[in-house]
This record gives sequence, structure tokens and C-alpha cells, in this order.
Amino acid sequence: MAWNTNVRWRLPLTCLLLQVAMVVLFGVFVRYDQDSDAHWIENKGSGNVSGDDMDNEFYYRYPSFQDVHVMIFVGFGFLMTFLKRYGYSSVGFNFLLAAFGIQWAVLMQGWFHSFHNGYILVGVENLINADFCVGSVCVAFGAILGKVSPIQLLVMTLFQVTLFSVNEFILLSLLKVKDAGGSMTIHTFGAYFGLTVTFILYRPNLSQSKERDGPVYHSDLFAMIGTLFLWMYWPSFNSAVSNHGDAQHRAAINTYCSLAACVLTSVALSSALHKKGKLDMVHIQNATLAGGVAVGTAAEMMLMPYGSLIVGFICGIVSTLGFVYLTPFLESHLRIQDTCGIHNLHGMPGIIGGIVGAVTAACATTSVYGQEGLARAFDIEGSNWSASTQGGFQAAGIFVSLAMALGGGTLVGCILRLPIWGQPSDQNCFEDAVYWEVPEEHKNEALHPEDSTLKPSEP
Amino acid sequence: MAWNTNVRWRLPLTCLLLQVAMVVLFGVFVRYDQDSDAHWIENKGSGNVSGDDMDNEFYYRYPSFQDVHVMIFVGFGFLMTFLKRYGYSSVGFNFLLAAFGIQWAVLMQGWFHSFHNGYILVGVENLINADFCVGSVCVAFGAILGKVSPIQLLVMTLFQVTLFSVNEFILLSLLKVKDAGGSMTIHTFGAYFGLTVTFILYRPNLSQSKERDGPVYHSDLFAMIGTLFLWMYWPSFNSAVSNHGDAQHRAAINTYCSLAACVLTSVALSSALHKKGKLDMVHIQNATLAGGVAVGTAAEMMLMPYGSLIVGFICGIVSTLGFVYLTPFLESHLRIQDTCGIHNLHGMPGIIGGIVGAVTAACATTSVYGQEGLARAFDIEGSNWSASTQGGFQAAGIFVSLAMALGGGTLVGCILRLPIWGQPSDQNCFEDAVYWEVPEEHKNEALHPEDSTLKPSEP
Amino acid sequence: MAWNTNVRWRLPLTCLLLQVAMVVLFGVFVRYDQDSDAHWIENKGSGNVSGDDMDNEFYYRYPSFQDVHVMIFVGFGFLMTFLKRYGYSSVGFNFLLAAFGIQWAVLMQGWFHSFHNGYILVGVENLINADFCVGSVCVAFGAILGKVSPIQLLVMTLFQVTLFSVNEFILLSLLKVKDAGGSMTIHTFGAYFGLTVTFILYRPNLSQSKERDGPVYHSDLFAMIGTLFLWMYWPSFNSAVSNHGDAQHRAAINTYCSLAACVLTSVALSSALHKKGKLDMVHIQNATLAGGVAVGTAAEMMLMPYGSLIVGFICGIVSTLGFVYLTPFLESHLRIQDTCGIHNLHGMPGIIGGIVGAVTAACATTSVYGQEGLARAFDIEGSNWSASTQGGFQAAGIFVSLAMALGGGTLVGCILRLPIWGQPSDQNCFEDAVYWEVPEEHKNEALHPEDSTLKPSEP
Repeated sequence: MAWNTNVRWRLPLTCLLLQVAMVVLFGVFVRYDQDSDAHWIENKGSGNVSGDDMDNEFYYRYPSFQDVHVMIFVGFGFLMTFLKRYGYSSVGFNFLLAAFGIQWAVLMQGWFHSFHNGYILVGVENLINADFCVGSVCVAFGAILGKVSPIQLLVMTLFQVTLFSVNEFILLSLLKVKDAGGSMTIHTFGAYFGLTVTFILYRPNLSQSKERDGPVYHSDLFAMIGTLFLWMYWPSFNSAVSNHGDAQHRAAINTYCSLAACVLTSVALSSALHKKGKLDMVHIQNATLAGGVAVGTAAEMMLMPYGSLIVGFICGIVSTLGFVYLTPFLESHLRIQDTCGIHNLHGMPGIIGGIVGAVTAACATTSVYGQEGLARAFDIEGSNWSASTQGGFQAAGIFVSLAMALGGGTLVGCILRLPIWGQPSDQNCFEDAVYWEVPEEHKNEALHPEDSTLKPSEP
Repeated sequence: MAWNTNVRWRLPLTCLLLQVAMVVLFGVFVRYDQDSDAHWIENKGSGNVSGDDMDNEFYYRYPSFQDVHVMIFVGFGFLMTFLKRYGYSSVGFNFLLAAFGIQWAVLMQGWFHSFHNGYILVGVENLINADFCVGSVCVAFGAILGKVSPIQLLVMTLFQVTLFSVNEFILLSLLKVKDAGGSMTIHTFGAYFGLTVTFILYRPNLSQSKERDGPVYHSDLFAMIGTLFLWMYWPSFNSAVSNHGDAQHRAAINTYCSLAACVLTSVALSSALHKKGKLDMVHIQNATLAGGVAVGTAAEMMLMPYGSLIVGFICGIVSTLGFVYLTPFLESHLRIQDTCGIHNLHGMPGIIGGIVGAVTAACATTSVYGQEGLARAFDIEGSNWSASTQGGFQAAGIFVSLAMALGGGTLVGCILRLPIWGQPSDQNCFEDAVYWEVPEEHKNEALHPEDSTLKPSEP
Repeated sequence: MAWNTNVRWRLPLTCLLLQVAMVVLFGVFVRYDQDSDAHWIENKGSGNVSGDDMDNEFYYRYPSFQDVHVMIFVGFGFLMTFLKRYGYSSVGFNFLLAAFGIQWAVLMQGWFHSFHNGYILVGVENLINADFCVGSVCVAFGAILGKVSPIQLLVMTLFQVTLFSVNEFILLSLLKVKDAGGSMTIHTFGAYFGLTVTFILYRPNLSQSKERDGPVYHSDLFAMIGTLFLWMYWPSFNSAVSNHGDAQHRAAINTYCSLAACVLTSVALSSALHKKGKLDMVHIQNATLAGGVAVGTAAEMMLMPYGSLIVGFICGIVSTLGFVYLTPFLESHLRIQDTCGIHNLHGMPGIIGGIVGAVTAACATTSVYGQEGLARAFDIEGSNWSASTQGGFQAAGIFVSLAMALGGGTLVGCILRLPIWGQPSDQNCFEDAVYWEVPEEHKNEALHPEDSTLKPSEP
């Protein structure tokens, strides 16, 4: 494939158009919620709101919000800088799509969940949820990293955020599924959506770019910045929107445990699967995080610390095995070119997370949670709630997420195949110089010439 | 110009002298405030202090403080590592000046704002304000980056912190201006102060160092660490010293929105202004932050989320245009050599921020804020307050800040021109090896020989 | 020395064995504490627990916990990336040992401090303390960096965490010593433990690896990421487990002051001790942190801001002098090969911190603390408490920590000398390629051939 990668007018127009739309829609729909409006001082102390300044939702959620924010922009951004010549794009495009995505997510999620009297009322929880939603786009970006243009990413973000919000609404509001850390809504959906897109964008001649499809020494260190910020802040991610008090507290503890266990089994498998016992940075950068993905649903439940360790234990193994055996198989036999191996980090662990959540929910009893605790943990309103039903709906959530991901990914993949988005040719993938002004040192050796006319060749 | 850059005795003496002065002045003046003193346990519950541990100011402000702290040291420090041979100095000198500056700022701001019975009483809010004050020095550092010695930076910090505190006192205490995020006090003042200093330190032969006045591939990635931590934590910056509750909450939301919009328009303009449509890292690293600067004053007001998006929208455009057209013009026609382009990131957006704040304040009504909310938002004590007067004073604040910056910058620039500070010659600018022991790899190719005697050449 | 460094079966088995043990022990012993258990909703409001959601311990400690978490994984991990060819190992092995260490520390510290009715009840404070405990292992790692295998590190972590917990129990529970920031328990113990281990692992032919025992330009910038995150978050470290309210507040302020002063004196000495007045990155990366170590014990006491400045002032000088004169002396005359110079950053400042704490405690009076404040600051229960006794016990804590470190270090050093752990030969130290798959660029120049048979040569 060879297309015109000069995005001079297409990219600016896309950005400006989307941003103007955001301004207009925010102007029509978005207002401050009770805790962020200047009337708060008058309302607090009345009704069921305490009179204490500290009871503003801001103080319950803001530190977690900032941690999540770091995960989206530095975590995902730098995790993808492992490629030797794609650091600008990894960090920069992630920055661009996330900055757009959070705005669109505030709107989409707002219409579904915070819509009152014609207005979307926003507070810190909306900002966290918007970051979560964009997290699923960052996941999908990992599959197509290096093979798409920034315009394609913006288009994908537009659609994926929309589909994410619909899926989230079905799960949380219709099926009454609990998924505070997003094993299903964020990771399973994001991963299989991205894998479907990359399947449809299959590039038969991608091997022409294979000399750039790998790291240099320092790029792997930059990637570790991403890994570590994701790993460290994951307890905040899984606890950010849980109920006040014990649920947030417990979600942080469980995630901490799962992630710790996952590091040891990832290292074990990485060494065991190398013929000289050497560790592979790819596994350390990615598989160590699978434990956080896999307790996303159950972290706020009474999973118990040892339960979390077991989940992390298993996921470190599954994820590393995936990198060694499954990713090459998917590429060679199923035409799925998964640049970052998101299937191993978000796909399989996401599904495991959904199953763990379903099982944990199905085992919930009043002796473990207490009467009030159980009611609060699962938002039980009527009397016809049962743990096994909850477990069943949780399980259904996995399938709904998968279905939405495969269907949505197919649709979006087909749209992104159109030869109008300025995507790079097969021999110019994984290369910053296509879309970036790069310093002299790299200029000479970069870029194969491309036709400046819009001329797609046969796929 | 060629001076003796061996700072062996001058730098240590300056550091030690300043630090001894700090110890003495802290010993005479600085004590713990009510919330950080061991008597707190006895005082709480009495008077108008609640009996709850959580009501210690620490819990309202500490998470924001840490975010601001990261912005000053990692944010500004790494933002300036984009130069290929000036990473040690960017991070290291920023570290040095900020470490001195925060101590001096605690004293200066303390005398003006926290002075009781002969003592400066400090708590977490003083730490935040000290970091803010140093933020304006970091801004000014951006203009003279690569062209000054660490001694000059310490001298500049000494004077700039002093002038900052006077200006801040005039604005906040005399004019009763609101400027929680410092569009005027930090950014406008810092930027025009720095630009005046660099104007006075004009180096006609700076082109002799131009081969080092640019990035290499990895230095641009290091700079993105700075950019992203500034971008992510800016909501904390603008909300850190706002009133408890809704004001902090709202300031974070508004800043989040403005910054998101700014990313899209920066990318749009960066691509549109390049003849092949390629993105420029300089714009992504800097212009994307202008939205945070420009809502510094109004973020805690009822600017509305769409208002924030509009501000960010405009600033991304203005800032990128500034980098492409204005910075080269300032250098070639006005003898202003602005290494980091602070005029585009802090100067113009700072003024825009002041104007936005003035307009937002002038439009404040009781219907939007509520009776109590309005009184709280603008610290209204008497009955003769009016929104338009507030707006007028806000606008006056911009001019006062500009006047202080130009006057103070001229004074300090002249002091820094003295040939005694160990500044580098024109052909050794942007070079770590002047003041740092660098690894072998770089040693051979570095440093032009300099006279070891103190011998300034003609300017 | 030349051993078989192929750890293919030994490393995986060690990891899996340890992790399985953790799962079993967590399953038998670890449960949620009151604030993280689902019964919390039923218990709060009853007894002496307030009915406010905000009173969950989570909200008092979680932001500090996350800062400490960043210090352990990014701070210590990246601080050690200064070596040109040891970045993967620095970050990766630190990640591995810390992930194991926190689990083992939750158990060990839990048995000593949180054991109720046969269960260890965990909450956010346990997570912080586990991170603290691992901090002392990270310190010790600094001494042996580049000279050990990951298996040796896991073995050392197993033993050191155990000994740390015993030492901590003696100090905090038996001697009733106050040491919230761990000058004695973490830094003194960790440093002298590590120095003893490296003494016993002395490598006479280490000079064969000396071409890799140093930085390149970019590795020093990576190390600054570690330095700055340690420096910025140290106020959180020293305040994380202090009493609610004023103690946490004061600990943060004191640490902030001490660290700021330390930067100026480190820079002063670094320049003064270089014959051309140039700064050395090693000092900026390390000595600037000594001020945080040295107020670890006294930060929560009424040390006063100027007292903190004095401590920082002294430690910047002591630490830099140590790097210039003491470290080479220790290596050449005492056979102590201290890769990162932990004696200067943690050893001497740790002892100074213990002394400062003892003196500050011995000077405590009711006029400074107030009656209630004093009782709370030193957990005074009976009436036979006196400040001088407290000071004496504090001083005793230093000697106990030193004795445990020297004794424990000797034991562990001897265990690590066994020729079964896959340690590198003298000519392959400081080299990632021994245990890591590294990108092609480095492969050719790397690794001296080693015997694949287990054949230790004479020491």
C-alpha cells in the first residue's frame, strides 16, 4: 500500500472540526454538578449533605483521578516508546487521541449517566470516567501502533468512545454489572476492538518495516517509565470510582497484591522460556501489568488478599506465554498484527478478570460482607437480588463486551481502510519521520519516498 | 564575549552564603502555624476549628502540593532537556535555583502574608505558594537557558523572588485581585521578566553555538516527560490554593478542559504551518500547555467548561503561531533571544489569562454564584463591591505585573551583565561541559578553549 | 571468579517457589482490617469511630502511600540507571525484588504489629510499611549493584526483610523509639547491611569491568528521574505513617526544608572539590537526597524549620565529602566496593538522623509540645516517661540497628558467596547482557564468554 502521507490539510481540519464540535456541545450540554458549582456553599449542610468542607466529592476522588491521569498520558504514552524510531508518535499521538477522547467521553458518558434536566452535570468522577474510557482507546492503539496516521487515530477514538459508552451503559445500567476497574468495559472491550481493527487493516508486506519493529537500548528504558507508572498507580485505577471507604480501600489492597504476584511469575516464565534463561524486556514491560487488569472487576469485592495473589500469579504466566507463543501464531496464522501484544496484556487478562469478578460475585454472602455491606457493595435495591444472578449477569457482561468489540471493531476497521486518512505505506511503518519533523541525525536514513499523489496500491 | 567560566570558588561561596542567610532568617522568623504545631491537638475542637483530624489543612492541600512540586522540579526541569547537550544543566540548574528559591520565597511571601507577632507561621499552603513563586523563576530561566552560569541563576532567583513577592502583594492584598493559578503573578510576570533579562543579555554572536541549539532524538523524548507532567498536574496547580470545596473542584475541571482543547488546536496549527504537514515537537512540547496558563486566573471562577474549552482553543492557536512567526521575529528584529519560546507559552497566554479573568470577574452575578457563593468566591467583605470594579482591578493587575516585570527585568539584566558571574562565551553556549564533568564520549568534541583570566571582550 | 550465569531453571524456580509460599501464607494469615472490610459500613458510627466516610484511614494515608510507592519503584529503580550498560537490570531487578519484598514484608511486619486472633489484618498503613521495609533492601542493592544475579537479590531480600522486621520490632515496640521516616530502621540498617554484604562479596578483579562502571550522557539523565522523584516525594515518605494532623503536616514541612538546604551545600561542595570547579552528576544525583534521610527520625518532632535547614546543610556537605574522599578509601583500603555510594547517601546521613532524633527527643518539653501534644507525639502512656530517657533509647536504637546490620549482613553475605546463585564473573559485571536479551546494537560488544559449567575459580 502507498498513500499520500502529507496530512497538511486533513489533520488540521479534523482536529479543528472535532474541537469546534466539542465547544458547541459543551456549551449546550455541560454544566458543573452540585459539588463543583458555586452554589455548593449554600447547599451543603442542607438535606443529606454534611456541612463539612471535606465532604466535597473532590477530596474523595481527586488524588486517585490524578494517578489515573498519569497512567493514561505517561503510562500508556511511554509504554509504547519501546520502538526505536516511534517515540514521538507513541507519546504524541497518544497525547492527541487522549486529549480529544476525554472531551468526547465526558459528553457520551454524561448523556448516559449524568444527564439531568437537559444538562450533563460534571464533577471529578466524570473526569475519572472519561480517562477510563480513553484508556480503552489507548489499549486498542497498542495493536495498531506504528501502522496508522493520526487522523485514523482520531476517527477511531470518535467511534470507540461512542461504542465504549454504549457498552458501558448496557453493562452498568441494564445488566447491573459491577466493573469498577474495567476488566470488561475497558480492557476486554478495548483489546478485542483493537485486535479486530488490526485484523481488518492487515498489512501483508509489513515485514518491509521489520528493521524498525523493535527497540534500541534507551527506548526500552523509556518504556519502563510507562510500565512503572502504570504498575504503581494501578491500585488507584481500580479503586478510583468505587464506593467511599472500605470499597476504595479494599480495591487498592487487592490490586497491590495481584500486581506484586504477577511480577514474580512474569519473570519466572520469561527466564524459563528463553533458551539461555535470559529475561526479555517485552515481558517485564507488559506481562507484569496483567495482574492489574485481571482484578479490575473483583478488586472492590471481598476477593481477599490471597485471592488477588492467585489471580496475579496466573496472569503473569498466561500473559508471558501469550507473548512467546500466541502473538507469533496470531500474526502468522490469523493475520492479526498486534504491535504491543495487547492480547496478552489486556485481552486474556481482561476476560480472566471478568470471570474472576463473576465468580467472586456469585460467592458473595452476608456472612462475608455483612447485611449492609452486601447491599452497598452490589447496590441492592429490591429484595429479589441473589448472588448467583449477579454472577450470571457479570458473566453475560463479558460476552456483551466481546460482541460489541468484534462488531464495532469490524465497522471501524472498514472505515479506517478507506484510502483517505494518510496512512503510511508498508515500508514506512514504525517511523516517526512520516508525520514528524525529526532531528538531522535521523533524517538521512529515514523514509522511503512516497508518491505525493493519492494512489493506493493493491492491498 | 569570553569570561572565566571556572566557578570553583564563586559558586560554592554563593551557595553557602545564601544558605547560611536562609538558616539565620528561618531561625529568627519561621515557626509552625496552628495546623502543623504540636499544640494543634489542644486547639482543635475549640473555637471555629472542628474536632475532626481530617480538618487539618494538610488533608485539603497536600496532594495538590505534591503535584505542584513535581511540576516545578520534573516538569520545568525536563521540559528544558530538549537541547542535545544541555540536559545536565537544564535539570540540574533548575533543581538548584528552585531549591534556593523556595526557601527565599517562604520568607518573602511569609513577611507579606503570614506574619504574626514577629513570626512567619508556615503550613502546607506556604509550601505551595513558595513553589508557585519559584515557578515564575523557572519560566524566566526558559528565556536565558543555555546562556548563563549557575551563579547568575542564583542571583536572578534572589531578585526575582523578591520582586515576585512585592508584585503579588500589590495584586492580591492591595488591588484585591483573584489569581489562584497565577496567570498574572506567575506567568505574565515571569515571562516578561525573563524576556527583558534576555534582551539585556543579548549575545550578537550566539550563532557560533547554533549547532548545539537544538534537539537530538532522545532529548526530545526526555522533554516530553516534562511536558506531560506539567500538562497532567496543571489542574492541581490552578486549584491548589483555591477555597475549599467547590472552588478547588471547579478549578480542576476548568483546567482539565482548557488543556484538552489546547492539544487539538496546537496539533492542528503545527501541521498546517509545516509545508509537508509534519508535526514539530517544539509545538507539542510547549503550545499544548498554553491552555493551562490561560485559565490560571479564571479557573476557580464560574468560567464554565465550554468557556474553558474556548480559552484552550484560542491559546493553542496563538501559542503555535507565536513559535512559528513571532519568536524568529523577536530574535532577528528586537534582539530578544528566547531559548524556550516562553513568550509563546507563558507571555501571551498569561496576558490572555489575565484578560479572561477580568472579563469573567466582571460578569459575575448572584444568579450564577448565589449570594453566599459570590461573597466567598471574591472575598467580599463590605457592601461596596461590584463585579465591574473587580473586573477593572483584575485588568489593572495585568499592567502592574507587566510594569514590575519590565522594570525588574531591566535592573536584574544589568546586574547579570557584570563580567563577574562566570557566564559562558558565545561559542560555548548550550553546552553542559562548561560547568559539568561529562562522560568521556562527549569530552573530545566539546568546549572551545577559554581564557582562564577574567577578560571580557566587546559585546 | 567465573560461574555459570545461565539462570534458566534456578531463577524461575526461585520466583515460583517464593510466590507459592506467599500465596499459602497470605491464605492462612492475611485478612482485611476494619477499614478495608465490607463490614466497615456497619461498624462506623459505633464505638469510637466517627460516622463520616472520610474517616476511613484510606483518606489519611493513601496519597502518601502512592508517593512512597513511586519512590521505591521509580525513585530507587531509576536512580541506579546511571550505569551505561546496566539500565535494564537496575530498573528490572529493583522491580523484581521490591515486588517480592512487599509481600514478604506484609507478612513479617504483620506478625509483629498487626496480628489479631491468628490473622494479620491489613490496611493502607501496612502497604506503606511494606514499601518502607523494601526501601531498606533497595538501599542495600545500591552497594552490590552490578555484581550480583537476580537470584542473589531475591535471597538477600528474603533475609533482609526478615532481619529488618526483627530490628524494627526491637526499636519500635521494645525500645519505644520513634522513627517515622526510618533514619535508623531503613537507612542506617539498610546501608550498613549492604556494605557488609559487599565487603564479604569482595571482588579483587572488579577492575576488569571498570570500563562499564560509569555513565554515558543519557544514562545520567535517566538517573535524574530517580533522583527527582525521590527528592520531591521525600516529604511524603517521612510523614506517611506519622500521627494524623499536625505530625504528618510538620514532618512534610521539615523534610521539605532539609532537602532544599541540602541541594545548595551539595552543589557548593561538588564545585569546590573539583579542580576546575565543575559539578559532578554523582553528587547532584545522590548527595542532594541526604537531607531527607537525616530528618527521617526527627521530622515529625518539633525540630523547627531552621533546625531542618541546619540538618540538610550539614548532610549535603558530609555526603559530598564522602563521595570524593571516603568511597575511594573504603574501596582501596577496606575492600568495600560500594557501587552507588550508599554509605554517603544512606549510611552517614542515617546515623546523623538517628542522632538528630535522639537530641530532639531529649529536648522535648511541654512548653514546646503542650501537655497533650507531648503525650501524643511520644505515645506516653504511664507517668514515668522523661525526655532524656526517650533520647537515650533513641540513641540505643542506632546501635541496635548497626549491630543487626553488621551481624545480618555477615550472615547473608556468606550465604550469597555460595557458588550456586549464577553471579557474573569479574569481567562481566555492570553488564545487562548477562541476564537480559539486549537489542542487537549492543550484542556484539558485550559479554565475555563464560564457562557453561559450574566452575568457580579462586576468589
